[in-house]
Amino acid sequence: MKINQNYLKLQDGYLFSEIAKRVKAFAEKNTNKNVVRMGIGDVTRPLTPSVVSAMKKATEEMGVAKTFRGYADEQGYDFLRQAVCEHYAKKSLTIDADEVFISDGAKSDLGNILDIFSQENTVLVPNPVYPVYVDTNIMAGRKIVFANGSEENAFLPLPDKDVDADIIYLCSPNNPTGAVYNKEQLKMWVDYALLKQAVILFDSAYEVFVSDSNLPTSIYQIKGAKKCAIEFCSLSKTAGFTGTRCGYTVVPKDLVFEKTSLNKLWFRRQTTKFNGVPYVVQRGAEAVFTTNGWQEIKAEADYYMQNARLISKTLTELKIWHTGGINSPYIWLKCPNGLSSWQFFDFLLEKACVVGTPGEGFGKNGEGFFRFSAFGSHESTAEAMQRLREVIL
Amino acid sequence: MKINQNYLKLQDGYLFSEIAKRVKAFAEKNTNKNVVRMGIGDVTRPLTPSVVSAMKKATEEMGVAKTFRGYADEQGYDFLRQAVCEHYAKKSLTIDADEVFISDGAKSDLGNILDIFSQENTVLVPNPVYPVYVDTNIMAGRKIVFANGSEENAFLPLPDKDVDADIIYLCSPNNPTGAVYNKEQLKMWVDYALLKQAVILFDSAYEVFVSDSNLPTSIYQIKGAKKCAIEFCSLSKTAGFTGTRCGYTVVPKDLVFEKTSLNKLWFRRQTTKFNGVPYVVQRGAEAVFTTNGWQEIKAEADYYMQNARLISKTLTELKIWHTGGINSPYIWLKCPNGLSSWQFFDFLLEKACVVGTPGEGFGKNGEGFFRFSAFGSHESTAEAMQRLREVIL
Repeated sequence: MKINQNYLKLQDGYLFSEIAKRVKAFAEKNTNKNVVRMGIGDVTRPLTPSVVSAMKKATEEMGVAKTFRGYADEQGYDFLRQAVCEHYAKKSLTIDADEVFISDGAKSDLGNILDIFSQENTVLVPNPVYPVYVDTNIMAGRKIVFANGSEENAFLPLPDKDVDADIIYLCSPNNPTGAVYNKEQLKMWVDYALLKQAVILFDSAYEVFVSDSNLPTSIYQIKGAKKCAIEFCSLSKTAGFTGTRCGYTVVPKDLVFEKTSLNKLWFRRQTTKFNGVPYVVQRGAEAVFTTNGWQEIKAEADYYMQNARLISKTLTELKIWHTGGINSPYIWLKCPNGLSSWQFFDFLLEKACVVGTPGEGFGKNGEGFFRFSAFGSHESTAEAMQRLREVIL
Repeated sequence: MKINQNYLKLQDGYLFSEIAKRVKAFAEKNTNKNVVRMGIGDVTRPLTPSVVSAMKKATEEMGVAKTFRGYADEQGYDFLRQAVCEHYAKKSLTIDADEVFISDGAKSDLGNILDIFSQENTVLVPNPVYPVYVDTNIMAGRKIVFANGSEENAFLPLPDKDVDADIIYLCSPNNPTGAVYNKEQLKMWVDYALLKQAVILFDSAYEVFVSDSNLPTSIYQIKGAKKCAIEFCSLSKTAGFTGTRCGYTVVPKDLVFEKTSLNKLWFRRQTTKFNGVPYVVQRGAEAVFTTNGWQEIKAEADYYMQNARLISKTLTELKIWHTGGINSPYIWLKCPNGLSSWQFFDFLLEKACVVGTPGEGFGKNGEGFFRFSAFGSHESTAEAMQRLREVIL
């Protein structure tokens, strides 16, 4: 039996395991010190009351023969697909229920969607970027080209007509940079994709943190996007579902490549290799989209965004160049004094007992940059910012 | 952008949608008749009290900041991996926790495992077979050869040394035939795999229904299997989790191909393209493996096996050749009077208002055979058997 040799081309180890290793070594040497973690992008606030209540009710239903639910459509229950459509309707967007595929999170779908595309396609990935986009394509042996983010373009790279690409990844609000494309910029990407007959994989996992109503929260707010873009959404950050696992992927029926509907291909993939999201979780997700549920999760998002604003304000006062923090829970900063990403990581850990994420872990253009996340508590964020002032000033 | 052309080689439509179509048409014409469904293999009994209670408790934990859980290891919580190891220990098998990968069900893992194998491998699949084994390999463009099940070998095909294969699917107790390999037969497969340096993908989703203690319920009960086999287990049938989604896959560290550990490759695949099973569901799964939990699910399995025995007994009395029903919830019968699978389907639906599954849907060797499932209620199963007697005798 022959293995998939592409796996051997993957870089060993993962960013967050190296961080964990260094933090562990530091903590063991400094048992009296309180380390504040501003690194990994996990939420800390609990599920909201509407979600908990819906999940408990659904669990009880599963314990009674009359209301028990077994296999369901792999693409999700109608009640949840409908709730997602109504969510889009609030943005004045018409999405049909059969264009919505309920998933166990954006990460799975962003990886698995590649199944339906030929391995011969060229992939265009921003740099820096969420490592999953790159690794999943290395696994499939695809050619990867990069769209360079930099201080000059505020980490919002735009398309270059001289570069050919078939599959384009975009993430806005961005992980790791927190930068958000405006409608004009996103329009340039849609036009480019249509020109190149490419498909855009639009990662919209952070839409809930956008407060500026002029900024797009769905790629379908851009004309022509339904003919070139698949949108990946997640309740992980939106509703604290990182440990509960639910998201949704929109594959418009207008997406036709080589006379073949991508909606039908994805349906075939999911019905063959996936068995749907737990009923209990889908009921929890449905609760997110109710009036009460949405108010609750907006309050949680506001909680995190208070942290984001404090981080951004502190960096501005310290005259540290950064993006994000306004419409995004991530803040991406230029390491002070010309330090490299890992040098700044070690400096911050040793001098301030604060953990962040070295930008280099997101690609070579991340070198010299650093990510803070706003997903901590108010207290820990304030403490971290106070310590930052002390060691930087 | 080029699509994956292999998808176009898949047969359109799925067995169960065709069944649903015919049943719907019949029901619309015969509104006064009560159709008994002995077809699709879904459970009907609710989650057991231990599972419901564990899931409710876990849901409550998720609503409180102190006990909230976000991202966890993609391969599952230690508490559940440990419980799985203890389950194996009861069979006198030593499986390490890092050989256990918690999944959202066997179907996902059986499809996704193919990621780590080269597309150049030849796949050996029994016929008849669970359609997912075939379809997932068509999607990847692999060469498929078949091991023929028949009345002569009681639908337990054995390896043929003249046939070369790299990836071998086995399912015992089998879906759809209900046939179960004994240890000597399974040993022949393990020896064949070792000889051919092939990997066995062993689908053990129906192990809980085996009551004969001489029959293997894990491939690791066969000497040498840890060097050639991956085992896929599911709580779907074991514990009524078809709508709750949890299973586990065992990838032994002894599995080394081309000097590469399959355990490490699968770990890399899962950490990159999967984000783990919901915490709430993992707590429910843990409860299955407690003393009380296991007693409860054994009682549910016994419930279904009473149906299986009644079906088998009825067929024996009607002198209809069949396999399964003793250590398996499926009964695979030879259509009487030389009818084809779909002819018998239509006959049974029209004359007896009973729905089963045409064997032809599981591959060409299923033509002329038919599957009953024991997952109904005692009442509906007894009713179906009574009607069968009336139309067959």
